[in-house]
Amino acid sequence: MDNTKIIEQIKSLESLNTADMVSNDFLLTWEKSEDELKAVFQIAQILRAMRDNNISSKVFDSGLAVSLFRDNSTRTRFSFSSACNLLGLTVQDLDEGKSQIAHGETARETANMVSFLADVIGIRDDMYLGAGNAYMKEVAESVQAGFDENVLPQRPTLVNLQCDIDHPTQTMSDALHLINTFGGMENLKGKKIAMTWAYSPSYGKPLSVPQGVIGLMTRFGMDVSFAYPEGYNVMDEVVDVAKKNAAENGGSFEIADSMADAFEGADIVYPKSWAPYAVMEQRTELLRAGDDAGLKDLEAKCLENNKRFVSWECTRDLMNRTKDGKALYMHCLPADITGVSCEEGEVAADVFEQYRVPQYIQAGYKPYVIAAMIFLSKFDNPSQTLTQLVERAAKRKF
Amino acid sequence: MDNTKIIEQIKSLESLNTADMVSNDFLLTWEKSEDELKAVFQIAQILRAMRDNNISSKVFDSGLAVSLFRDNSTRTRFSFSSACNLLGLTVQDLDEGKSQIAHGETARETANMVSFLADVIGIRDDMYLGAGNAYMKEVAESVQAGFDENVLPQRPTLVNLQCDIDHPTQTMSDALHLINTFGGMENLKGKKIAMTWAYSPSYGKPLSVPQGVIGLMTRFGMDVSFAYPEGYNVMDEVVDVAKKNAAENGGSFEIADSMADAFEGADIVYPKSWAPYAVMEQRTELLRAGDDAGLKDLEAKCLENNKRFVSWECTRDLMNRTKDGKALYMHCLPADITGVSCEEGEVAADVFEQYRVPQYIQAGYKPYVIAAMIFLSKFDNPSQTLTQLVERAAKRKF
Amino acid sequence: MDNTKIIEQIKSLESLNTADMVSNDFLLTWEKSEDELKAVFQIAQILRAMRDNNISSKVFDSGLAVSLFRDNSTRTRFSFSSACNLLGLTVQDLDEGKSQIAHGETARETANMVSFLADVIGIRDDMYLGAGNAYMKEVAESVQAGFDENVLPQRPTLVNLQCDIDHPTQTMSDALHLINTFGGMENLKGKKIAMTWAYSPSYGKPLSVPQGVIGLMTRFGMDVSFAYPEGYNVMDEVVDVAKKNAAENGGSFEIADSMADAFEGADIVYPKSWAPYAVMEQRTELLRAGDDAGLKDLEAKCLENNKRFVSWECTRDLMNRTKDGKALYMHCLPADITGVSCEEGEVAADVFEQYRVPQYIQAGYKPYVIAAMIFLSKFDNPSQTLTQLVERAAKRKF
Repeated sequence: MDNTKIIEQIKSLESLNTADMVSNDFLLTWEKSEDELKAVFQIAQILRAMRDNNISSKVFDSGLAVSLFRDNSTRTRFSFSSACNLLGLTVQDLDEGKSQIAHGETARETANMVSFLADVIGIRDDMYLGAGNAYMKEVAESVQAGFDENVLPQRPTLVNLQCDIDHPTQTMSDALHLINTFGGMENLKGKKIAMTWAYSPSYGKPLSVPQGVIGLMTRFGMDVSFAYPEGYNVMDEVVDVAKKNAAENGGSFEIADSMADAFEGADIVYPKSWAPYAVMEQRTELLRAGDDAGLKDLEAKCLENNKRFVSWECTRDLMNRTKDGKALYMHCLPADITGVSCEEGEVAADVFEQYRVPQYIQAGYKPYVIAAMIFLSKFDNPSQTLTQLVERAAKRKF
Repeated sequence: MDNTKIIEQIKSLESLNTADMVSNDFLLTWEKSEDELKAVFQIAQILRAMRDNNISSKVFDSGLAVSLFRDNSTRTRFSFSSACNLLGLTVQDLDEGKSQIAHGETARETANMVSFLADVIGIRDDMYLGAGNAYMKEVAESVQAGFDENVLPQRPTLVNLQCDIDHPTQTMSDALHLINTFGGMENLKGKKIAMTWAYSPSYGKPLSVPQGVIGLMTRFGMDVSFAYPEGYNVMDEVVDVAKKNAAENGGSFEIADSMADAFEGADIVYPKSWAPYAVMEQRTELLRAGDDAGLKDLEAKCLENNKRFVSWECTRDLMNRTKDGKALYMHCLPADITGVSCEEGEVAADVFEQYRVPQYIQAGYKPYVIAAMIFLSKFDNPSQTLTQLVERAAKRKF
Repeated sequence: MDNTKIIEQIKSLESLNTADMVSNDFLLTWEKSEDELKAVFQIAQILRAMRDNNISSKVFDSGLAVSLFRDNSTRTRFSFSSACNLLGLTVQDLDEGKSQIAHGETARETANMVSFLADVIGIRDDMYLGAGNAYMKEVAESVQAGFDENVLPQRPTLVNLQCDIDHPTQTMSDALHLINTFGGMENLKGKKIAMTWAYSPSYGKPLSVPQGVIGLMTRFGMDVSFAYPEGYNVMDEVVDVAKKNAAENGGSFEIADSMADAFEGADIVYPKSWAPYAVMEQRTELLRAGDDAGLKDLEAKCLENNKRFVSWECTRDLMNRTKDGKALYMHCLPADITGVSCEEGEVAADVFEQYRVPQYIQAGYKPYVIAAMIFLSKFDNPSQTLTQLVERAAKRKF
């Protein structure tokens, strides 16, 4: 994209209403309006194009971005770091092991204590059902109160880096990948996407990706087919969100009984393992109780149960059922690849390899999506600010 | 504060002699002159006002700030990160677990090896009596020698982020909170502050805060009342410092027998738990010897002994004994709050909650106090440099 | 060095062909041409002189530098951080404990996932024979492929921060120390350097330093004498490299039987402990197998065997055998110093202390050497870019 085209894209932002995003958080995609989602996609593309054209998008001269990871992360950690760095913020990890949080501090106090010079707080908290998103809201309310009480000179923005309900930085990157693959958001209308469970020899994978996908892809008028083995259902409230979205946006949402049914005629497939909601509930209780024996027992039972559905693997045969046998395969990575990372997994090695590069490209949107979310929370006239950045034309690399 | 007022404040710095702070460290407040303390307070306020007015105070284009935490920290870690970030320095943690320090390196060698491009070294070392401050001095001497021997191109500044003797970044923030609460340093003269022990169901809390408070608040002509249960005395040398300060600065210093006595008519109260000096000495020996059984035994005895003084709790009744029942309650946080973070603790929940916001504000000075300490060690004409920064008027946020 | 001299030095770069370094890695010194090595030395000196003259060499406005340390590090970690910071890059650690790497990700995938906005990847991987350098190559190929496939917008540069074969950032710093000590690279011709084994009460020290030293010092027409006890040989392929280098560059390479022989008439001595190649091979197998008992057993045998060679200590008597008794003593640090860090070690305390300052100075080149390696991979006309930086004259410190 040359600079003229970047300026055009920036201009097109003017028609979008993003006023409510200012000094606000990004926790669940279904809390955001269509304009707001569009603005995230467009600014992500603009920031990427600017960087490709060696134009700096550093809007902060100093400032901290707090990161709190309560679960492992490579991709999201680096995406968050990259996004913050792109905008000029410095990441400071809040390491609950090293800090005094374990010793009885309230979330409110800690949220304020780390935020005196923080513009952003990114949190991954996906281990406990009913807890992750709630914790993020508590932190958001705490820093809002801190700002209102003149404790904080600015109101840090919360970015959900994966919770028990949604994984918005992932699914927004997934959606941007679809937008670019199919040539525009308008082209997603009427496309069929199969979000399906897939077998994995592991257990306890969060529900946030399947939930996030059905909650977001129903916004674009797509036909969303959701399939999983009996018992592997997700949170009812998110299924309701998906149904409501589909009704409002001219697409459809169905629950299918098998990977084969869901794949039939699909334009896009997203086969991925997750743990049943009921298991996650039990696991949450056992984790809270620190019941290691119980956890071990639960794991064994789950792995055993998973094995009943080892046929839920994305194979060439199944891919052949999709539209012209050419559906776009997606995964949030890392995938459990049969014969590569495990004996039997979510996807056949040849299918994975065929779509390896598109998947890497899919992952590559995340830094820009996060940066766009932050940007929109910080500038009330994003179009003007971006224009000024392009005009400033500071170089990213000398 | 508008820019005109900032410039006024900057001008008023000219009368303060801060020459000795250049290329020097900040280890103990009582090693600093009145002018030097005043300069820290004023520059902290100026840096804060500049940031509030979106004026960048980035004085380093590159440069490292080494942080070494030998004890847990959330507040001070983030304050140090924030301060360094505000000035343009990048924090690199010296993690003794990950590094080769454990394998026989001398302090001198390590100090030089991490300092080739470092402008600041921040250290928390408060676990061992007789060791923390001594280690900081050793590091300071090592980098001074490295600079003199042309090993280091600059002389990194040591900032004491809590040692066995003092916690200057905490107490200077506390003092700045008092200055702003009472409308100026001159208004602290004659005010009574009660620094008292308080009950906590934990053990082994450092002595640095009570010692630092009595060592600093006696500088401002305040009446300092220091109270603790029998046996919970602190280092004699710091008590001597407090006495000397009081004599020289027109205030007073007394040791009271009870919280009630100390609180009587007080303008400010600072009730906080700490371990008896004798216990800390034993603990230091046991820690050095790696005597885990001995440590466990000591902990049990201490907790048992603490329980004798469970009545040392800052309650409403006790607050009512203070001046008009309205003394300012202070704590370095996190506090052990009765019925909130523990069954019986340092402070009643209603008292804590009443003063929650002021306490958060108190904590919010620390990043600027640290930044001011660093600034004063790096610029020999702080007034001129700050004026140039205000005139440069680079934006903190685009 | 004043700015005129800096400009002169920059001009002299023009005669060096560094075209192949652009978008390339720095893994082994013997993969680099004489021009390329010279360019690293000169740019390291230029960057250092610029910093000494308060001229910023920040060439990146944003950008990540990924660091992956699979073994402990203090010096190299801080050197890498310092180098990246000097150029404007922000280090993000890839912590394999915290990340999902352990859970079956391929090196290719991870390499791409962390590199979307990364300009540099620095890796230390020296624990496994046959693995460290191979892993670095795999990462390099992965990011090259990612760049070719439009997954990555830039091709991150790999910097070897110590592998099983070489330790180029160390040995290039060592060489720069020699260049400056002896007044120029041309003065190294005909100088004798003794790279010898030395006794240490520890075990399993990597071979990369002795291998790197004999592989690099033979490039400058030096007489390299390599001595070690029977059985303590290094990789044959590196010995072959050293022989070939010596033949091509007008110096010599010999294997001596004792420290005394190697020291005879030497201008420089580099006595340092390492583990025998055969032991490292066994250790690699045991580490891979997770055979803790086997490892303990091997360690005990090795320590026992080491003790046979406790006389391999760099003492004053041995130093007296060197040229005029005044050879330059070198060590990559930390050294095992007799009576200081251990009872009997690599070097006598008086010898070490005599050369302490020069050794610290030697270590101080590493940040600039790493920065020069990165710089040369990023700018195809380094002379022009450096001239522009000097002309820009942005201040490092306000």
